[in-house]
Amino acid sequence: MISSFTPPQRILMGPGPSDVPQRILDAMARPTIGHLDPAFAELMEQTKTLLRYAFQTENALTFPVSAPGSAGMEMCFVNLVEPGDTVIVCRNGVFGGRMLENVKRCGGVPVVVDDAWGAAVDPAKVRAAFEANPQARMLAFVHAETSTGAQSDAAALAAIAREFGALTIMDCVTSLGGTPVRVDEWGIDAAYSGSQKCLSCTPGLSPVTFSERAVERVRARRMPVQSWFLDLSLVLGYWQSGGHRTYHHTAPVNPMYALHEALVMLREEGLENAWARHRAMHLRLKAELEALGLSFVVAEQDRLPQLNAVHVPAGVDEAAIRARLLTEFDLEIGAGLGDMAGKIWRIGLMGHSAREENVLHCADALRQCLGGERMAA
Amino acid sequence: MISSFTPPQRILMGPGPSDVPQRILDAMARPTIGHLDPAFAELMEQTKTLLRYAFQTENALTFPVSAPGSAGMEMCFVNLVEPGDTVIVCRNGVFGGRMLENVKRCGGVPVVVDDAWGAAVDPAKVRAAFEANPQARMLAFVHAETSTGAQSDAAALAAIAREFGALTIMDCVTSLGGTPVRVDEWGIDAAYSGSQKCLSCTPGLSPVTFSERAVERVRARRMPVQSWFLDLSLVLGYWQSGGHRTYHHTAPVNPMYALHEALVMLREEGLENAWARHRAMHLRLKAELEALGLSFVVAEQDRLPQLNAVHVPAGVDEAAIRARLLTEFDLEIGAGLGDMAGKIWRIGLMGHSAREENVLHCADALRQCLGGERMAA
Repeated sequence: MISSFTPPQRILMGPGPSDVPQRILDAMARPTIGHLDPAFAELMEQTKTLLRYAFQTENALTFPVSAPGSAGMEMCFVNLVEPGDTVIVCRNGVFGGRMLENVKRCGGVPVVVDDAWGAAVDPAKVRAAFEANPQARMLAFVHAETSTGAQSDAAALAAIAREFGALTIMDCVTSLGGTPVRVDEWGIDAAYSGSQKCLSCTPGLSPVTFSERAVERVRARRMPVQSWFLDLSLVLGYWQSGGHRTYHHTAPVNPMYALHEALVMLREEGLENAWARHRAMHLRLKAELEALGLSFVVAEQDRLPQLNAVHVPAGVDEAAIRARLLTEFDLEIGAGLGDMAGKIWRIGLMGHSAREENVLHCADALRQCLGGERMAA
Repeated sequence: MISSFTPPQRILMGPGPSDVPQRILDAMARPTIGHLDPAFAELMEQTKTLLRYAFQTENALTFPVSAPGSAGMEMCFVNLVEPGDTVIVCRNGVFGGRMLENVKRCGGVPVVVDDAWGAAVDPAKVRAAFEANPQARMLAFVHAETSTGAQSDAAALAAIAREFGALTIMDCVTSLGGTPVRVDEWGIDAAYSGSQKCLSCTPGLSPVTFSERAVERVRARRMPVQSWFLDLSLVLGYWQSGGHRTYHHTAPVNPMYALHEALVMLREEGLENAWARHRAMHLRLKAELEALGLSFVVAEQDRLPQLNAVHVPAGVDEAAIRARLLTEFDLEIGAGLGDMAGKIWRIGLMGHSAREENVLHCADALRQCLGGERMAA
């Protein structure tokens, strides 16, 4: 007979989810109400307002998709890309590759701008791609590559797209709340994020925002969106404020409580303070990791404070170390993905995980494991 | 400044979500762990086992989609329907219409079998549709129409499909856990449900199950699935047991705790007992509603015990009554959808909501509101 599940108490320093504060867990456990209840409508309006603050945007169309970040990504692409559209896709890690996959499945014609994993996207290459493909209608890039820990210059990339009359889709899953994301100032037309990274909420929701230019592009579509669930024209009827709210799908009510609470907490701390905290904890961790002889994958100027990718030392069984960290220290850190599997560790300092006790615990645990490993070798 | 959200304490007797037991809310608030944590993998395996019990199936491919029921529906269609496939779609309410929309967006060629809203699907019409369209590769129908409260004879419909060599997709969003759903006995190839109906979990997850025949159909696809997020071949790598679990998306960890607990509770009660409880509470409510002079939309033999659709009495402002029920009695009941908007109420007795105190509270509240309304008229 299967009985109730009691999870272990972990310290989450992988690429997400991050540690979820008790206050957010408590919010999630409040009584469920209907998704059409006027009280829930009020929660939705507040959540939109709070998300606009997080994204630094005035975009009316700003809300959480009722599914994880991958669905938020897909919502951007299925609505904004029509068959035959040329889309310039920047690929410097796993998530750029996933964007490319999305473009293909929408019938778009991708032009891929490749950069090395661990490097930022090179704006010069993006400019060259636009010059060679002036018909391109869209630029897609990842602001903060969760697979490598590299951050790209979103402002520069979006400016190039605008110069060539293209819209910009930005993945800010790992950056939102951790490093500056300025949707309006940068001129981003569509951005998606995730609840479980620097917002420190439970996984399962994907905040998105769309500019007026993006909404116009959706309105001007020649063909219906291939997804019913992610069709913005339908979702809009549910998320719009004022007047009649049309039933589309049943929103995940309790996870929405949690996201609301996470955003209230972000507002209380202040975005700038949250960014500074991530930066400060990164510097603490960096000193600790370097003292252990670990080297970073990403060049210093492109490094994300909230995702520290380091090379696994030669001769070390990286999976064994991660297993030991988990079982002996209740500490989760991330493995490498794709080409970097087995070669790197990804140590997250996201949201509530970006605090001193976590930095010290991680450094101490790694010290013990690597010391032991070296002695054993 | 927006502050923490405190929802009102409602009694949920609409078409879902239903009342969520405190035990499930408590489970959801347990500490978040990583979606690749071995402890989470164990939770996933147990959830699959428990879902097989709920669906009455041995299907290996049985798991919860990380999104609401609409996404579960879409997962079935985008994987099983290829452009040009003829699909017979039964439409006797809103959700049959949504299935039709899914078929179109997959490039399928729909053959619609219409029945009146409030009626069950007529097997004779389905047989005639197959005879006229022997090339049809799929039959899609809604077992329990949430928009009307009508239940169709799933066994009979699936048998016809099988006779003509077609696969069957069944919507059992509102039936799972409330009335018998026997996926294997009936020969259903794909079924999807929702967490927030008779399972009494919070909204946001969609249990699905696929037969071996369905998996073969997916494997034999000529074209990639149009959705990356819902592509079974990718999701499979994440949900498969044993060996290497591939990262696909970040599962909604805490909602998964809640679903697991809801399924443990269903197992404790026993499916047959849960079905009997829904039936008994329906009979109690039926007597109360009829004593108030309210008449049912659906003929007795096709009536769903867990969703009681009744005609709004002539001259009654139905929205005003619902608003009063909510504000004065903290009671949510459902409005009509689509063609039935303004004409019916939908009173849910789903999961934890199917208990005597709810029946009595609802009857009492309606008595007061309708009495007052009549006096005012």
